[in-house]
Amino acid sequence: MSNRIDEGRDILLYLDNKRRYLVKVKKGENFHTHKGFVELGSLIGKNFGTRIKSSSNVPFIALKPTLADYIQKIARRTQIIYPKDMALLLLYADIGPGSKVVEAGTGSGALTTLLSSYVRPDGKIYSYEIKANFIEVAEKNLKRAGVSELVTLKKADITQGIEESEVNAVVLDLATPWLVIPHAHRALVGGGVLASFSPTIEQVLKTVEALKNNNFTVIETFECIVRRFQVEMGRTRPETLMIGHTGYITFGRATVA
Amino acid sequence: MSNRIDEGRDILLYLDNKRRYLVKVKKGENFHTHKGFVELGSLIGKNFGTRIKSSSNVPFIALKPTLADYIQKIARRTQIIYPKDMALLLLYADIGPGSKVVEAGTGSGALTTLLSSYVRPDGKIYSYEIKANFIEVAEKNLKRAGVSELVTLKKADITQGIEESEVNAVVLDLATPWLVIPHAHRALVGGGVLASFSPTIEQVLKTVEALKNNNFTVIETFECIVRRFQVEMGRTRPETLMIGHTGYITFGRATVA
Amino acid sequence: MSNRIDEGRDILLYLDNKRRYLVKVKKGENFHTHKGFVELGSLIGKNFGTRIKSSSNVPFIALKPTLADYIQKIARRTQIIYPKDMALLLLYADIGPGSKVVEAGTGSGALTTLLSSYVRPDGKIYSYEIKANFIEVAEKNLKRAGVSELVTLKKADITQGIEESEVNAVVLDLATPWLVIPHAHRALVGGGVLASFSPTIEQVLKTVEALKNNNFTVIETFECIVRRFQVEMGRTRPETLMIGHTGYITFGRATVA
Amino acid sequence: MSNRIDEGRDILLYLDNKRRYLVKVKKGENFHTHKGFVELGSLIGKNFGTRIKSSSNVPFIALKPTLADYIQKIARRTQIIYPKDMALLLLYADIGPGSKVVEAGTGSGALTTLLSSYVRPDGKIYSYEIKANFIEVAEKNLKRAGVSELVTLKKADITQGIEESEVNAVVLDLATPWLVIPHAHRALVGGGVLASFSPTIEQVLKTVEALKNNNFTVIETFECIVRRFQVEMGRTRPETLMIGHTGYITFGRATVA
Repeated sequence: MSNRIDEGRDILLYLDNKRRYLVKVKKGENFHTHKGFVELGSLIGKNFGTRIKSSSNVPFIALKPTLADYIQKIARRTQIIYPKDMALLLLYADIGPGSKVVEAGTGSGALTTLLSSYVRPDGKIYSYEIKANFIEVAEKNLKRAGVSELVTLKKADITQGIEESEVNAVVLDLATPWLVIPHAHRALVGGGVLASFSPTIEQVLKTVEALKNNNFTVIETFECIVRRFQVEMGRTRPETLMIGHTGYITFGRATVA
Repeated sequence: MSNRIDEGRDILLYLDNKRRYLVKVKKGENFHTHKGFVELGSLIGKNFGTRIKSSSNVPFIALKPTLADYIQKIARRTQIIYPKDMALLLLYADIGPGSKVVEAGTGSGALTTLLSSYVRPDGKIYSYEIKANFIEVAEKNLKRAGVSELVTLKKADITQGIEESEVNAVVLDLATPWLVIPHAHRALVGGGVLASFSPTIEQVLKTVEALKNNNFTVIETFECIVRRFQVEMGRTRPETLMIGHTGYITFGRATVA
Repeated sequence: MSNRIDEGRDILLYLDNKRRYLVKVKKGENFHTHKGFVELGSLIGKNFGTRIKSSSNVPFIALKPTLADYIQKIARRTQIIYPKDMALLLLYADIGPGSKVVEAGTGSGALTTLLSSYVRPDGKIYSYEIKANFIEVAEKNLKRAGVSELVTLKKADITQGIEESEVNAVVLDLATPWLVIPHAHRALVGGGVLASFSPTIEQVLKTVEALKNNNFTVIETFECIVRRFQVEMGRTRPETLMIGHTGYITFGRATVA
Repeated sequence: MSNRIDEGRDILLYLDNKRRYLVKVKKGENFHTHKGFVELGSLIGKNFGTRIKSSSNVPFIALKPTLADYIQKIARRTQIIYPKDMALLLLYADIGPGSKVVEAGTGSGALTTLLSSYVRPDGKIYSYEIKANFIEVAEKNLKRAGVSELVTLKKADITQGIEESEVNAVVLDLATPWLVIPHAHRALVGGGVLASFSPTIEQVLKTVEALKNNNFTVIETFECIVRRFQVEMGRTRPETLMIGHTGYITFGRATVA
C-alpha cells in the first residue's frame, strides 16, 4: 500500500505515548480530543508521518497504524494476551509465510489479526470460537486490518474436535487448553507445533501433562516480561508501574507414532 | 516444502531441551553423540516428527528445524541479541510480508535470517557489514535457511550513509547506533520505523537523544525478559539460572518535516 | 511489650490485603469504614489476633502492627524507597544491634524507623534533613513506632559535611548522594559501609564514580524486585500489576588509606 | 567489638566481587590464592579496611566480615534460600530485638545465623533439625558468627509438634511446611507470624491451603528477585546471568479463635 494518506485510510493520531488514537480519515470530519479537534480532511494527499496541529494549536502526528497498533486496539477489551506474548508465540511456533494454522478461541480477533498478517500471502488461519457475538466483532476487526480473506472463522467448540488436518501449528488461548491436545495431535503434521497461552499455573500444569500423554515432545513453558524504560538525560529508569504478568506460553511438537 | 525427510534436508535431532543438534541428512552417514550414533540414512522417506533410536538404543526425534532453531544456531557464536528480542523487534518495527528493510550490522546473519523470513515473498533486506569474514559466514547461514535471495549483503559502513530510500524500517544492532540516526531518517518513508538493539544504558541514552534531534517520534525503549519454567507435578518453578539481560530495544518513527 | 490490647495501643485493623488500617485504641471511639464501624473500646483487654465484627457484621481482625506496617504507613506520602529495599539495605549494609549509623535525608522517617528498630538496644541513628517540616513529621512517626530515643534528628545539609565519626554505616536516600561520598569516607570506620538508594541510572553512575574516587571498595549495585502471587487452587499466578521499579541500591566499603 | 584486627579474628580478604575469602587471622600463617599468598600475621594490630599486598604484589583488602558474608559462606553448600530472601523474611515476619522465634530446618545454620543476629540481645531462636550431622555443622557456624548463645538447636521433627509456646514467629524452610501449620498456630502468640520459604509452586499451594484451614489471616506470597548491575561509564547494564529463582516466601498471621 502507498504511503499517502487517502480518503478512507486509517491513521494513528499520535500525541504522546499515552494518547494515540486509531481513526479513519474522512473529508469534512473532525476528530475531537481534550487538546482541541483535528481536521481529518486536511490530511488527505499528505504522506504518513506528517505533523498536524489541532484547533488548540497542539501538534499531533498522523502515522500509518502498525500491526501492533491494530492488535492493541482490538485486544483492549476482551483479551489478556499481549503483543509481546504474540510475538514470542509467532516465532517459537514457527508460524510464517504459507503456514496453515488452527487457532482457538477467536475472541475479538487480536491474535487472529497477528497470525494472519504473518502467514501472508498463501497461508491460512482456521479460527474456532463458540460465541457468535465474538465472531461478528472479530470479522469487523479482521476487515479493518485488511486480513479477513486469510481467515476462516468457525463457530464451533474446538474441545469437541478439529476438522482440519496437516496443519503446521495449533494456537490456543482458551480456558481449558488441555482438552484440545489430543485433537491437536491428530490435526498437526509430524513435528508441528502446539502453542498455548494461559494465565494460571494450574492451566499450564494440565496442559503440559496432556502434551506428555499425547505424544508431544520439546515441551517448554515460558513467561515473557516486557519492561518499559523512561530514557531522559538525568531521569533514566524503568517505569514505576508495569504489567507484572499476562500469562505463560507453553509449546510442544507432535511426534509421529 | 514437504513434510518428508529427503536426502540433503536439515533435521533437528532432539534428545532433550539441552541437547538438540542441527544436522544434514545424508545416506550412509552417522551422527555421533555421547548417547551413541544415529544412522541418518535410515530417516530418508520418513516424516518429520519420527522417533529414531541411536546405536545405544536411546530415542531421538527427527524434527524439521524451525526458524528459531536456525537463528539460535547462527547466533550462538557472535551475537548478543536473542530470538525473544528479535520477535519483539519484528512486531514493534511493523516488519512483515513485503517490507523493505535496511539492517546493520549483519554479523553472522541471525537477525537477517529472521527478518528475511518474515518479509517473504516480495520484501527485501539490505544488510550492511564492514567485516568481510562476517559477510561470508552470513551468506552461508542465509543459504542454509533458504532465504538468501531476499537479502542483499553489502560490505559498507552504515555510519557513513545509507544508499537505499523509501524503506519501511531500519534495524540496528551495532556499537554506535546513534551515528546512523540521521541517515536512517533520510532512508525511511514517512512514519517508517527505526529499531535499535543495545546492551548498555549509555548506548540507549545516545540513541534516544539522536532520535529526538532528528525528527523521530513515538520514541520508546523496552527490555524483554523471558523466564523458562520447569513444569512437573510437584516440582513446578522457574528455572534457577536465567539470562538476566541481553539488551534494550529502542524504537522511533520518522516524521515528515 | 505484652500481647494484650490496652487503651492507647496501636492496632492494625485488617479486612483484606488491600484494606488495612493503623488505628489507636480508645474507649468510646468508633472507627468508621465503608463496611460499617468498629467499636474500638470493645477490644480492650483482648489479645492481638482477635476477630471483631463491624456494625455491618463484617469480620475484621485486630493485629499488632508490625514494623513493616508502620513503615508502609509512614512512607506512603513522601518516599519512594519500599520496605523490600530497606530490608536488603539493612542486611547488605551490615546494620544490626549496636550499629552507629548516619542517615540522610530523614524525610518522613520511614527508613529511620526501620534502621532504629534494628540497632536496638544500644545503637544510634543520626539522621540529617534540611526541611524543618519533615523533621517534625518524622519525630511524630518515630514516637508512634516507639523508637524516637534511638534517633538524633539533625536539621543540617549532609552534602556540607558529617559531624559524626567512627560510624558503622552511612545510608543515603537523597537526590545527590555523590556529594556526600567524601564526607562519608571520613565518618566511617575502616571497612564501614556506604549504602545509597537512587531511582535513576544517572544517580547510580555518579555515585559509583564518587565511590571509586574516594577509596571505597566492594562497590556493588542491585535492584530488588518483589512480585506478589495470587495463590488460590485453580487461579494461581503472579498479580497482573506490579511495582516495576523503585530504585537501585549501591553499596561500598571504606578502605583505610 | 573493636575495629582492630586481632589474632584469631575473622577477616574477609577481598580481591574483587567474585573472589572474597573468609579467613581467620593467625600469626605465622599465610593464605594462598592464585594471585600469590597473603601474610596474615602482618595484619594484626591494623584496622579493618586495610589494604595488603600478596606475595605477587596484588592488592587485597582486609575487611570485617559482614553478617551477609557469614551467611553466604554457610549457605553455599546446603541451602537454597538466599540472603535477599532472608532479609525480606526478617522484616515481613516482624522479627527483631527480643523476638522469640521457632525455626526449622536448621540445615547448616545460615538462616539461623541471620535470625539470631537480629533478635539480640534478649531474643531467642529454637531451631529444629532432624539430621544430627547438620546440627553439628550449624553449631560450628553459629559459634564462628558469635551468635550461638541465642540459639537452642533441637534434634527433633517439627512436623510432629512444637514444644514452645507464645512465640512471635515460626520460620520454615523445609520440604513439607504444610504439615507444620497446625503446630505453628498453637505455638504462636495471637497475631504471630508464620513465614515459609519454598522453591516450588506446589509447596506454596499446600502451605496456603493449610494456613486458610488453620485460622491464619493476612496470607501473602512473594517472590524476591535481585538483579546485579554492572555500573561503569559506557558499559552500564544488568549482568547477563542472574539467579532467576530461589523460592517463594509465604506469610500468615495467627488469629485467636
